[in-house]
Amino acid sequence: MTSATSIPAAVIGVTGYGGLELIRLLHNHPNFEVTMLCARSEVGRSIAEVVPSLKHTRLGNIEAIDPAMVAKKAQVVFCALPHQASALLVDELLKYKLRVFDLSADFRFEDQAVYEQWYGPHPAAHRLQQSTYGLVEINRQKLKNADLVAVPGCFPTAAILALAPLLDAKLIETNGIVIDAKSGVSGAGRGAKENTRFCETSEGIRAYSVGGKHRHTPEIENILTKVANTQVQVTFVPHLVPMARGILATAYARPKDKNASPETLTKLITEFYSDSPMVEVLPSAVNPDTLWVRGSSYAQVSVTLDPRTKCIIAQAVIDNLDKGAAGQAIQCANLRYGFAEDCGLRQLATLP
Amino acid sequence: MTSATSIPAAVIGVTGYGGLELIRLLHNHPNFEVTMLCARSEVGRSIAEVVPSLKHTRLGNIEAIDPAMVAKKAQVVFCALPHQASALLVDELLKYKLRVFDLSADFRFEDQAVYEQWYGPHPAAHRLQQSTYGLVEINRQKLKNADLVAVPGCFPTAAILALAPLLDAKLIETNGIVIDAKSGVSGAGRGAKENTRFCETSEGIRAYSVGGKHRHTPEIENILTKVANTQVQVTFVPHLVPMARGILATAYARPKDKNASPETLTKLITEFYSDSPMVEVLPSAVNPDTLWVRGSSYAQVSVTLDPRTKCIIAQAVIDNLDKGAAGQAIQCANLRYGFAEDCGLRQLATLP
Amino acid sequence: MTSATSIPAAVIGVTGYGGLELIRLLHNHPNFEVTMLCARSEVGRSIAEVVPSLKHTRLGNIEAIDPAMVAKKAQVVFCALPHQASALLVDELLKYKLRVFDLSADFRFEDQAVYEQWYGPHPAAHRLQQSTYGLVEINRQKLKNADLVAVPGCFPTAAILALAPLLDAKLIETNGIVIDAKSGVSGAGRGAKENTRFCETSEGIRAYSVGGKHRHTPEIENILTKVANTQVQVTFVPHLVPMARGILATAYARPKDKNASPETLTKLITEFYSDSPMVEVLPSAVNPDTLWVRGSSYAQVSVTLDPRTKCIIAQAVIDNLDKGAAGQAIQCANLRYGFAEDCGLRQLATLP
Amino acid sequence: MTSATSIPAAVIGVTGYGGLELIRLLHNHPNFEVTMLCARSEVGRSIAEVVPSLKHTRLGNIEAIDPAMVAKKAQVVFCALPHQASALLVDELLKYKLRVFDLSADFRFEDQAVYEQWYGPHPAAHRLQQSTYGLVEINRQKLKNADLVAVPGCFPTAAILALAPLLDAKLIETNGIVIDAKSGVSGAGRGAKENTRFCETSEGIRAYSVGGKHRHTPEIENILTKVANTQVQVTFVPHLVPMARGILATAYARPKDKNASPETLTKLITEFYSDSPMVEVLPSAVNPDTLWVRGSSYAQVSVTLDPRTKCIIAQAVIDNLDKGAAGQAIQCANLRYGFAEDCGLRQLATLP
Repeated sequence: MTSATSIPAAVIGVTGYGGLELIRLLHNHPNFEVTMLCARSEVGRSIAEVVPSLKHTRLGNIEAIDPAMVAKKAQVVFCALPHQASALLVDELLKYKLRVFDLSADFRFEDQAVYEQWYGPHPAAHRLQQSTYGLVEINRQKLKNADLVAVPGCFPTAAILALAPLLDAKLIETNGIVIDAKSGVSGAGRGAKENTRFCETSEGIRAYSVGGKHRHTPEIENILTKVANTQVQVTFVPHLVPMARGILATAYARPKDKNASPETLTKLITEFYSDSPMVEVLPSAVNPDTLWVRGSSYAQVSVTLDPRTKCIIAQAVIDNLDKGAAGQAIQCANLRYGFAEDCGLRQLATLP
Repeated sequence: MTSATSIPAAVIGVTGYGGLELIRLLHNHPNFEVTMLCARSEVGRSIAEVVPSLKHTRLGNIEAIDPAMVAKKAQVVFCALPHQASALLVDELLKYKLRVFDLSADFRFEDQAVYEQWYGPHPAAHRLQQSTYGLVEINRQKLKNADLVAVPGCFPTAAILALAPLLDAKLIETNGIVIDAKSGVSGAGRGAKENTRFCETSEGIRAYSVGGKHRHTPEIENILTKVANTQVQVTFVPHLVPMARGILATAYARPKDKNASPETLTKLITEFYSDSPMVEVLPSAVNPDTLWVRGSSYAQVSVTLDPRTKCIIAQAVIDNLDKGAAGQAIQCANLRYGFAEDCGLRQLATLP
Repeated sequence: MTSATSIPAAVIGVTGYGGLELIRLLHNHPNFEVTMLCARSEVGRSIAEVVPSLKHTRLGNIEAIDPAMVAKKAQVVFCALPHQASALLVDELLKYKLRVFDLSADFRFEDQAVYEQWYGPHPAAHRLQQSTYGLVEINRQKLKNADLVAVPGCFPTAAILALAPLLDAKLIETNGIVIDAKSGVSGAGRGAKENTRFCETSEGIRAYSVGGKHRHTPEIENILTKVANTQVQVTFVPHLVPMARGILATAYARPKDKNASPETLTKLITEFYSDSPMVEVLPSAVNPDTLWVRGSSYAQVSVTLDPRTKCIIAQAVIDNLDKGAAGQAIQCANLRYGFAEDCGLRQLATLP
Repeated sequence: MTSATSIPAAVIGVTGYGGLELIRLLHNHPNFEVTMLCARSEVGRSIAEVVPSLKHTRLGNIEAIDPAMVAKKAQVVFCALPHQASALLVDELLKYKLRVFDLSADFRFEDQAVYEQWYGPHPAAHRLQQSTYGLVEINRQKLKNADLVAVPGCFPTAAILALAPLLDAKLIETNGIVIDAKSGVSGAGRGAKENTRFCETSEGIRAYSVGGKHRHTPEIENILTKVANTQVQVTFVPHLVPMARGILATAYARPKDKNASPETLTKLITEFYSDSPMVEVLPSAVNPDTLWVRGSSYAQVSVTLDPRTKCIIAQAVIDNLDKGAAGQAIQCANLRYGFAEDCGLRQLATLP
């Protein structure tokens, strides 16, 4: 794909699912060109050998992670390392004036104490204030000038997209919110762990990190509190679902106005997302299916209420690797470079 | 398996999943012997031909549904027809003094008006008062003498098992309860419907009947109201999960006592189920997995709370076809005949 | 995506999986623009309503199939109707000088008798001689001028890609060939049939149409016979695999030259496909995985042999809806219009 | 389940899938009682804690593997350790006059050289001549007195059941046989390996060990050669299928008698298995599905031919953990103790 603009991009952490998805999406992007693949393992091997589905990219070998070399070969860096591993590297990359889109949790909190409570000592805390939270639909203006973007977690992306319009409009109570989230197995990463074995994930569903133990809890509350402009507290329970990709967040909240109707609620969120090309609002009677966004960077949201209990049910689906990770990173980069927000991200879901 | 007792049993509706599972479980039961298979379709064909996994049973041909013939061949009837179809037949069967365990919704409500609001005109309303709701753990004593048992719905079974101990002990508020339930695809029945196609259920999760529209809602509220001895209202949202079997109910409730701990809650439900061989209580830190009950008639429950939000999270898993249907019917029949409650139901889950 | 060229295209049969996939792929094509969606059902409804994953396309309503109207709105037609339904329509479309890429079996045989033996009376047999078989890697030159293209069946595509280089080079015996093929469930189409229910396809694998009964048998033999320039006969056994997409053909053949090595065989097929951008040859030690082409229009092939038995094992994987249907149709259309063969088809597989 | 006979049994290697399945099946056996659980890891922990689906067994803690202690607590040992690890232990166990049913490959070959070519140096080769190959349908008489039984591999079980009747009757050629086998993921064991991750096995099928490299090849040929009473050679290609359990072997062979019909072939295998309660013969027009034996210890076989190519296609399905491992071990133990061959093994498949 030829293009007037072609910005050299490095992808770091290419052996994980986030890194692989960055390669897949950037392969179709008209304005970014992957010029460097880095990882902490498999160095020196061809990416096509490590992951045969990438044979068609004609990309070369995986290189060791060397900030100086990255600075020579790329202007923009997509970093898909685990938290803690990311922070020190990002600190280095920024010294070279690179623009960094970081998929880890390391720069998602401005409050160091909150980060450290959930993730441990921060290796580069002085960068926290320079970071911008990369949920475009909430932070679009700031992101246009952000050189360090903390790409949101997958669960927070879905949960915030479902609830932000309602909190922004002060339509729901800010306590008592329940977020029952369901994730495909790729959310657990590519490490060969016991809980990602086919035989013990297929044909079973289970909750995990129940009791407010999941690290995405403070991230969700932090952002929703900003949106609501008052303290928001959520009971967040993630579940592991026997599918590779996708997150569905089903959020339950009490309305402030008992007379809200599904139609007025839907109108409200439609307006909230009217300038957001990556978010589709479904009618209140249609429940979003993760299958409808599988392999795409779109989110789909809907809202309705239970007329008997008055409970508001807000739903959002994303592909955790796309809108929940790689696609969202590219969406932020598009903004930073002045491209159309959905540039290179218009791939449709593979259904079936 | 030879046995001193061998009670002839008819299974009606053998071409659906509930009927098939009744055959599978009764095949290993020492005291019931299947002597008649009936269905509305496939009449005259061998069950082994229709469902080759049943070849090993050496059962004969499927017969038409004829109450008089059923009365000749069987003493006990397990009826797995759809609601409405079941009611008239059950009425006839009872005239022959047969004991009937009915998997449909037709006799689950004593209040005709509630039934008719959700299911349409009742074809045999005069039998409603004779029926006993077949959730053994709640209704054990009554079931010992019940000749017409309404086997509970699959979602109600899971939801009630999770919440009943807490409501019985008056530990949670009776309003604001959220039940986020997840079901495998067999819950939708065996008809070849669009929403049960492999290609459009695999790799996707979605809610359905959102907004209090699912017919299991009044059943859940009806039973929980009796347990609590005060009106209980729930927001019930079922989800379809890409697996064949299993239900997980994740229930959220506000505690009356803010000082409850996971340990005291777990102790409470352990006591509640101390005489219930088919229910296992897991420690509060262990989240039940549908895989742990797949193909078995056991339920597993656990309860914990979110220390920040004080929200109580009660979970239950069952196999929707076993504890949620066929296994529960047999459990009720065991009670009626004075057998051990778990007689013939001690098969373990197939894991993986 | 702006482009100098923008050719109006109609997709016919948009409610089936082939039609949906055509829409998905054409959405990213720089030179074709979908201007009309037709189907035999759901006429008048918005495609976004029928298939919410297509909401992002902003395409309009489904129209009835009217050749005159198609001719007004489009220059090229991608037709994804079932066999027999397709033939009469295609005949009409050709009268309007439209270029037609037909996914059905109706124009895959030049010999009317063979067609009729397997599919029944041909509704437009006079068109058989005008048709070109759309397997680009075999028929590239002819396809550059073809106005009626019979897009190959999914199994034949995989089987022929695996075996054609070996038969072309006269390296294997032309009898005794076994093709053991494995297909995802979408190969059975979108109709809600018994054999495509989640509960009876998940967690099971089975052969079907065993004994030379599958309609793709004559198609495979017909093309391989042309490639080999002598009669080829195959034992073809398809299997249904619990996955939505993908075909793996594992072909077994006896070598003419007992001294062939995996390396020389691999070199041979590498040369055979040297000008074929949509086919990747893997080293003999690497076995292609359908996951590596899922959602992409690439094929992957490899060949090796069993040193003890001398049996040659040739493998090919495709996504049955892409290289096996929609992607292949577009590849043919690219050739006809002089675009790069892989134009719009460079999407990578979604892994995981 | 009470019983006059209750033989104390030890299960060794309980943390793997084979060991878990032994526990599951023995739990329903009237004549064996599990009195000891041993493993190389998780020692001292409760089995219910390690595998919550086994909570209902009320079995105690996992113990270290100590032959003397095993001899005190059990009369019969089911050993599910990996090959090489098994041999030395089995040697010790036999010194205590225990009866050993070994699921590993260590005692499947009487010829030490063949074993060592495929598995490495044999740790207890002097026991090879004392071992009996545990495929009941082939070796029933010998197994009645066997104190060391080598339970067959899962692929050999399926392949031999499909082909043995045809070779025994000298109906097919003994060379040129192709066995295309398909296995669920549990066949790869419980270790958390890359090739068993959900995300990289779900939605994909691939061959492995192509080129006669799979260790089950010599086992298949060894037994079939004995059955045929002449050297048999097979091209064996296993495939990994996205399901947890099940093996389908599709075998292709050339008939010696070109006039064989599907009916005569089916009659032949029906007679061959007439005294074998664990093998069901399906009509030639019915293709066995792994789903029909899922969770059961039955095998299903069928045979047909392609009338055009004369190729004979023989198929067999088993659950790899049951008839392919634990169930087969118990079947052998039943024979040794004079119980009905299918005692405790009459559980039906869980369908769906």
